[in-house]
Amino acid sequence: MQELKWSKTEKVAARRAFDWAYRRECDAIAAKLKAFTATVKEPADIWRIHDFLTEQRRTIDEKYDYRYSVLISVLATLLKEGWLKEADLEGLREDKIEDIKSWASM
Amino acid sequence: MQELKWSKTEKVAARRAFDWAYRRECDAIAAKLKAFTATVKEPADIWRIHDFLTEQRRTIDEKYDYRYSVLISVLATLLKEGWLKEADLEGLREDKIEDIKSWASM
Repeated sequence: MQELKWSKTEKVAARRAFDWAYRRECDAIAAKLKAFTATVKEPADIWRIHDFLTEQRRTIDEKYDYRYSVLISVLATLLKEGWLKEADLEGLREDKIEDIKSWASM
Repeated sequence: MQELKWSKTEKVAARRAFDWAYRRECDAIAAKLKAFTATVKEPADIWRIHDFLTEQRRTIDEKYDYRYSVLISVLATLLKEGWLKEADLEGLREDKIEDIKSWASM
């Protein structure tokens, strides 16, 4: 991918979209955590929740990489997975939005 | 510590006490997990719960070591921390119970 320039406005828009996605995905993890925790009966259930959180944290840490050099593909992944909607990309230049949608559809 | 012999009856009693303690301590962790989880609002709260479980799991794994060579000190720790009561040691030889109580009081 060619190196892209990000205007100040675009940086604000990209950060906002990134943060929305992070929040939505974490809210979904929190909802699962609450549901799992409500069913804990045996010690093994506790460690299963720990395993679940370990996996989620690893995934989140890897996915939410806010470097401009990888941001198009990161936003594309978030769009593809449903943590972002197209409307959330408002404020980015049209060619970036097209790139993100194109990557997301792959 | 001198190497101790464990009769079949004592092994059953020791295992039972060990399992009771494990269960009680895990029940306490589960209660904390449920209380913490009920208050989750921010993504950081999720990761704090993960840190809490990581720490608890490490502690539990280290503490609950069922080798006869270390069992007196393990049971002593559990007695000291309140996960075992003296009555739970019933079935062990009197000298072992005294050893456990003596270690627990240190």
